[in-house]
Amino acid sequence: LNHGIKVVDISADFRLKNAAEYQSWYGFTHSAPQLLEQAVYGLTELHRSQVTSAQLVANPGCYPTGAILALAPAVKEDLIEPDIIIDSKSGVSGAGRTPSLRAHYSEANEDVTAYALEGHRHLPEIIQELGLLHPGKSLSVTFVPHLIPMTRGILTSCYAPLPLGKVAAGKKGEEEVRQLYLDFYKGEPFVKVVEFPPHTKHTWGNNLCLIHPTIDHRTGRLIIISCIDNLVKGAAGQAIQNMNLMLGLPEVTGLEALAIYP
Amino acid sequence: LNHGIKVVDISADFRLKNAAEYQSWYGFTHSAPQLLEQAVYGLTELHRSQVTSAQLVANPGCYPTGAILALAPAVKEDLIEPDIIIDSKSGVSGAGRTPSLRAHYSEANEDVTAYALEGHRHLPEIIQELGLLHPGKSLSVTFVPHLIPMTRGILTSCYAPLPLGKVAAGKKGEEEVRQLYLDFYKGEPFVKVVEFPPHTKHTWGNNLCLIHPTIDHRTGRLIIISCIDNLVKGAAGQAIQNMNLMLGLPEVTGLEALAIYP
Amino acid sequence: LNHGIKVVDISADFRLKNAAEYQSWYGFTHSAPQLLEQAVYGLTELHRSQVTSAQLVANPGCYPTGAILALAPAVKEDLIEPDIIIDSKSGVSGAGRTPSLRAHYSEANEDVTAYALEGHRHLPEIIQELGLLHPGKSLSVTFVPHLIPMTRGILTSCYAPLPLGKVAAGKKGEEEVRQLYLDFYKGEPFVKVVEFPPHTKHTWGNNLCLIHPTIDHRTGRLIIISCIDNLVKGAAGQAIQNMNLMLGLPEVTGLEALAIYP
Amino acid sequence: LNHGIKVVDISADFRLKNAAEYQSWYGFTHSAPQLLEQAVYGLTELHRSQVTSAQLVANPGCYPTGAILALAPAVKEDLIEPDIIIDSKSGVSGAGRTPSLRAHYSEANEDVTAYALEGHRHLPEIIQELGLLHPGKSLSVTFVPHLIPMTRGILTSCYAPLPLGKVAAGKKGEEEVRQLYLDFYKGEPFVKVVEFPPHTKHTWGNNLCLIHPTIDHRTGRLIIISCIDNLVKGAAGQAIQNMNLMLGLPEVTGLEALAIYP
Repeated sequence: LNHGIKVVDISADFRLKNAAEYQSWYGFTHSAPQLLEQAVYGLTELHRSQVTSAQLVANPGCYPTGAILALAPAVKEDLIEPDIIIDSKSGVSGAGRTPSLRAHYSEANEDVTAYALEGHRHLPEIIQELGLLHPGKSLSVTFVPHLIPMTRGILTSCYAPLPLGKVAAGKKGEEEVRQLYLDFYKGEPFVKVVEFPPHTKHTWGNNLCLIHPTIDHRTGRLIIISCIDNLVKGAAGQAIQNMNLMLGLPEVTGLEALAIYP
Repeated sequence: LNHGIKVVDISADFRLKNAAEYQSWYGFTHSAPQLLEQAVYGLTELHRSQVTSAQLVANPGCYPTGAILALAPAVKEDLIEPDIIIDSKSGVSGAGRTPSLRAHYSEANEDVTAYALEGHRHLPEIIQELGLLHPGKSLSVTFVPHLIPMTRGILTSCYAPLPLGKVAAGKKGEEEVRQLYLDFYKGEPFVKVVEFPPHTKHTWGNNLCLIHPTIDHRTGRLIIISCIDNLVKGAAGQAIQNMNLMLGLPEVTGLEALAIYP
Repeated sequence: LNHGIKVVDISADFRLKNAAEYQSWYGFTHSAPQLLEQAVYGLTELHRSQVTSAQLVANPGCYPTGAILALAPAVKEDLIEPDIIIDSKSGVSGAGRTPSLRAHYSEANEDVTAYALEGHRHLPEIIQELGLLHPGKSLSVTFVPHLIPMTRGILTSCYAPLPLGKVAAGKKGEEEVRQLYLDFYKGEPFVKVVEFPPHTKHTWGNNLCLIHPTIDHRTGRLIIISCIDNLVKGAAGQAIQNMNLMLGLPEVTGLEALAIYP
Repeated sequence: LNHGIKVVDISADFRLKNAAEYQSWYGFTHSAPQLLEQAVYGLTELHRSQVTSAQLVANPGCYPTGAILALAPAVKEDLIEPDIIIDSKSGVSGAGRTPSLRAHYSEANEDVTAYALEGHRHLPEIIQELGLLHPGKSLSVTFVPHLIPMTRGILTSCYAPLPLGKVAAGKKGEEEVRQLYLDFYKGEPFVKVVEFPPHTKHTWGNNLCLIHPTIDHRTGRLIIISCIDNLVKGAAGQAIQNMNLMLGLPEVTGLEALAIYP
């Protein structure tokens, strides 16, 4: 950095603004807290202009990418009450390539489990970024990740109460929500607001985030389903997206390769 | 029935008490509404004595089995507020054996999706049975099923607010909740309250329901994870369990076969 | 065709030269036998110049693509005796997208089986093309396909006796065989002769055929392992490769997209 | 052993009769070669009477179990020429529970590969046992194992030439072969000669070996497909089967549990 080199850091080391959180979530004292303020959280869709001029970008975690993009429009536009449940389902590649019993084929295959119920390290990122979208509002976020038997992909299901009268009843309300999401992500090359519950398979190998917001009219809750390929938009793809912006290249460079399906 | 034959019905035809619900959820007019009152909902752990003397038992759906067992102690003991989120993850065998595009290997493999966001047919069963556990309390239940790439198993994640002061803070609160669950299911041969998030693999081929209740202290929410083999406790196994009771056999007859793992 | 349009036919209708074989293998009388002679079998690496000037190209089957490319150098250079065993392992997408019990997730998952032991329709293609490489030699080919639980990919294992003294003993013999294969496929953009047993995962989503020839010195047999993505080199990718040649485009146009791994 | 305790050894340490082979295949000098002669190779169907009176039984490897049972009748009855190809497909649990890159979910999933082409350690067991069935005949056996993306199961495909005139032509020949296999395995509780290519799924969790012999009439080759659950008949199940005999218990004790399917 001192030599003017631009950096996209793919670790968690510069994602959180508050150095103290590294102590409580990661168990270490941050060795360069002065850089935390300077670092830009690289969820491109939320911080594009800052990324463009940044010297240090902290590439987001895989879970936060899907969760924040799913909730950002609703939080920003004050659509929902702050009682948010995030239930995520991730493929095994999210656990990294280091062999472990949890990632052993015979253990992970034909199995699903929840984990990190005491609190996952990606939770503070999610709270930080959603909080920035609506300062002053105190969010109450529960985040539970699940491991499912597939290689790539994260599907995130979000639930939050809609205040009474916030949107119209019936199909009209769903249309209003959908329009709010379409407006929020207008022109985004890698976020698509879709009319049906998305499949992670549709993001296999590409940099897309698919988002489907809808309403549970019986209970007055907003439900948002999002999905990404955790190894592309959730990791290396988003890093390239940020790097492109930092270097003045078109944002989509190298990311338009043929989508792989199925 | 008129000939005195005892029946365990594995369809949905006698699960709901209110004939009108068949019209709205299943799209047909019930042809034998007079039997609905007589039929016993065959979630054995909740209705054991009625099953024992029943002539007609309606075997529960796979999703309701896992969801109701997960929530029953909390609802019955008035532990939680009525704002309940149920997020279920099911293997593909839940979709039946009839070939379909959704169950086609190349579609279902390496994919996860939410479905039936407009309301799944198993929701009224869940509401009916939870409601019976605490009459007078109006529940607000959101239920979203997901299809994940494995053959057998359903993992259900339930979320509900704990009223302030309902349980102690910290680990002590978790112990209180755990004890409440242990007491509720004391002596049950097929329900185990476990100390860690359960794996569907541990129920592979057996009639168990594993339940893990815990607390998200940051938000004051109760989280309950349950799992079953949808083809055993979620279907044929539970039918045998009910049949055993109806015929005066030991409840576990034929259901103690070796657990298969992994 | 009468209007001068160039056609890549992806069915089996023009793959076989002998109209009578359609009767015995496919159960129908060919309705345009006069086109069979004109049609070029579109295994590009074997018939490149003919494809370039062809009006009608018959795109090869998925199994034959992997099997013929694996065996072509050995047959052409008279390396092996004509007693050939071809044991192929295919992902489920090879069965097509039409729902069927065989392709049902719960049937295909966690299962492997051999099928078409009485003779698979792709056998006559294999015999025809290998025969053309060494006219006059009568080949005795056994081909057994297997269905394995994955979406994409075919791995083909070929076994044939090496006549005594044909190659040097020990590692030197393996080097000779390897060199023969390298020479045969020199300059080919989509065939790679590799030093280790290949993984279908390495061809996932790309148009490559990976081939690994080696020797079982204990028995004096040549073993060749090849793999392809059945939906790319085994189908649409090869069709594009042929189309490019027919239209005078660079052969690799549209086929250089990022390889997907894993 | 010196104390008269009966042992079923599940390692490879006492499977081979020739101590020198431990040096060449396993890379160590055998420390108790005097026990090799005494040890009984625990493929129960071939050595039942010896197992019954044995003090030390060497439980067979998973691949040899499926391969030897598939070939034993044909070798014993001199049905085939000694040029044998064995192509096996194993689920990942065969690789053991120790985490490794090869068994990592993201590597093993959606992949198939051949391995140990230079010679797998199970080959000498196979040659030893088949050789004992027809002393004096020199067998030429090629064995290639493959790893496929499932947890349990081994499917083995065997190929060998039928001498001309050995069996009748057409369906009649297949019937003769089938009858020879039925006779050989008459009364066996855990070997079933089946009329169709077997599925590993049908052996999931049980101690069966399913065998399907047939003829490739075009080439005059015998094809035999066998399958087992590598963790049951290929390991612990067979160990129990041997132990039962050694202790004078009914052979099937503890092995009749409900078959799990799918």
